[in-house]
Amino acid sequence: MTEKKLSGAGLRGQSAGETALCTVGKTGTGLTYCGYDIADLAEHAQFEEIAYLLCNGELPNQDQLADYKQTIKKHRILPDKLRQVLEILPASAHPMDVMRTGCSVLGNLEPETNFSQQQDCFDRLLALLPAIICYWYRFSHDRVRIETETDSDALGAHFLQLLHGKKPSALHAQVMNVSLILYAEHEFNASTFTARVCASTLSDMHSCITAAIGSLRGPLHGGANEAAMAMISQWQSADEAEREMLAMLARKEKIMGFGHAIYREADPRNAIIKRWSQQLAHEVGDKVLYSVSERCEQVMWREKKLFPNADFFHASAYHFMGIPTKLFTPIFVCSRVSGWAAHVMEQRSNNRIIRPSADYVGPEHRELVPIEQR
Amino acid sequence: MTEKKLSGAGLRGQSAGETALCTVGKTGTGLTYCGYDIADLAEHAQFEEIAYLLCNGELPNQDQLADYKQTIKKHRILPDKLRQVLEILPASAHPMDVMRTGCSVLGNLEPETNFSQQQDCFDRLLALLPAIICYWYRFSHDRVRIETETDSDALGAHFLQLLHGKKPSALHAQVMNVSLILYAEHEFNASTFTARVCASTLSDMHSCITAAIGSLRGPLHGGANEAAMAMISQWQSADEAEREMLAMLARKEKIMGFGHAIYREADPRNAIIKRWSQQLAHEVGDKVLYSVSERCEQVMWREKKLFPNADFFHASAYHFMGIPTKLFTPIFVCSRVSGWAAHVMEQRSNNRIIRPSADYVGPEHRELVPIEQR
Repeated sequence: MTEKKLSGAGLRGQSAGETALCTVGKTGTGLTYCGYDIADLAEHAQFEEIAYLLCNGELPNQDQLADYKQTIKKHRILPDKLRQVLEILPASAHPMDVMRTGCSVLGNLEPETNFSQQQDCFDRLLALLPAIICYWYRFSHDRVRIETETDSDALGAHFLQLLHGKKPSALHAQVMNVSLILYAEHEFNASTFTARVCASTLSDMHSCITAAIGSLRGPLHGGANEAAMAMISQWQSADEAEREMLAMLARKEKIMGFGHAIYREADPRNAIIKRWSQQLAHEVGDKVLYSVSERCEQVMWREKKLFPNADFFHASAYHFMGIPTKLFTPIFVCSRVSGWAAHVMEQRSNNRIIRPSADYVGPEHRELVPIEQR
Repeated sequence: MTEKKLSGAGLRGQSAGETALCTVGKTGTGLTYCGYDIADLAEHAQFEEIAYLLCNGELPNQDQLADYKQTIKKHRILPDKLRQVLEILPASAHPMDVMRTGCSVLGNLEPETNFSQQQDCFDRLLALLPAIICYWYRFSHDRVRIETETDSDALGAHFLQLLHGKKPSALHAQVMNVSLILYAEHEFNASTFTARVCASTLSDMHSCITAAIGSLRGPLHGGANEAAMAMISQWQSADEAEREMLAMLARKEKIMGFGHAIYREADPRNAIIKRWSQQLAHEVGDKVLYSVSERCEQVMWREKKLFPNADFFHASAYHFMGIPTKLFTPIFVCSRVSGWAAHVMEQRSNNRIIRPSADYVGPEHRELVPIEQR
């Protein structure tokens, strides 16, 4: 393969279209949603404002936000048939397969029959995805049929309440809110691009989101926070982490949660979630996991000049809130669905079917030999 | 938007990677699978040879083909839990939503836990997709729980037998075989590209195929044969067809089943399926639908220099075999899954995550105004 071909592999650096939703690595701390810096949003906004912003292009005022949160809240009851399907899926299923299937089933029951319904379909998905994963998880693991309505009007707190069966602390609710904001949108990443390719055939919203969930499931994409958790939870001290990490580097093993395809110096989401992880560590009296994580960060920077990305301190943060590791990527879905839906709407508003070409490297013309002579 | 940007929209003409599976519009009649001309394959091969060819790079000999057909045949029984889900999906569901969901559910029950299982996962899907759609269709529409095993060792005949509950005629079995061959593979079309983007995150086979089904569902992609059927079935004679078609052209309405993004002079699949549609018309004593279709072809060529694509004569051919229009695109899935799976395997064999860039057209940096002041 020539140098030229390599540089084009994976469409890296090639524009696949226009977007008004997001910049990655261009201005300020490096990540903006509709022109707003991620640090400002994570400090001051509610996740529902972000979902509104991405689909409408502008932040809501107080009345609009209150209305929007009310709308989402009303959508939280699972349709009976979807509940029945979730009860059929086994405890051994991959949680991302459950998310993908839940979204797909919903498309059978409440199809988007024309694009004027796109906002409603998105609102419903936003409201139901936490219910889909938590209902399946509690039923398949604990044989408990949970109610999927709660009195919380914030999606992050609602998720924790579905999972744990009790109202979360103010700190946990706030960390979930920040986490959902950080994961909401990231330009033409692989899952979002999957959603846009699907949307470009003018397929329905559920097909696009189902496809995106399937892409996010891949270990090169959404699974990094789970992989980071698997790694750091093995170690009992910062010194052990340093020793083992150096050994991994010597063996040239891949270490998840570090570096990024586009950011070169830092992932702007890291400093934010790291600070919250530290607060949670303090709250739960952790003496191990946070310091292990911090040491990993120091070692990777010293040895490889690699920085933690959004996923790395998410692992400890989620763990401190009692979230099972296998639900980390599904939470990512509950947030990113807002970016996916906004990209589907944007693709539809100025569409041409996404149909690239390929470089042919196969056999030249071959004569067909009858099967009797093969 | 500048001319330059327009030419890049939808990645048209831009290479998104390499493939050894297919050429479109390059040599011979314009379509080759692994170097073999589509006309030769449609004349002499069985669909199972094509599925084998795409995933293995070489045509099977007689023993290999017999083994392969036996393998697929053994995979035809639906898992109980998948059957239960299919019974839950309503008769009003979009059949492509059922296909997408059936594939996704299977991923929960029989996950691909590592890539050494990719061929098995594909074989199972190939065997089960006809069962998924026909079981749901017969149960939801007729309250009949069909057996999904038949004595036919050919996928096309098997499909017709599941649908109609009786062994098809030799002619129908042959037309289905040809149809499945024609639809099996078509380079980096939108659904195949969706599968490859998903595969590039190293996600599992079911996620990739589920995503591709969602893209094929779009009216700009897989739905053309159904749209063609809806159009031609309105007309009672060739003269009426000509009159109405001219009126549609005068109103600048889009006419489905004609023209192609890549082929410029003809779609090589058209002449093949047209010949079979004519034979079927003769067999069933049709005096209307085939002559209506032929007249449409003449009018579109005379008026617009547009030729029928693979979908147009598929409409009448499927109709003559008693296939309900809403199952046309699901049959496309039963065939194209072979191309999708082959592309997933090819992507995995030389992978880099597909993550393009975007041209940002949104607002410049904006200061966040506190919600109380908005």
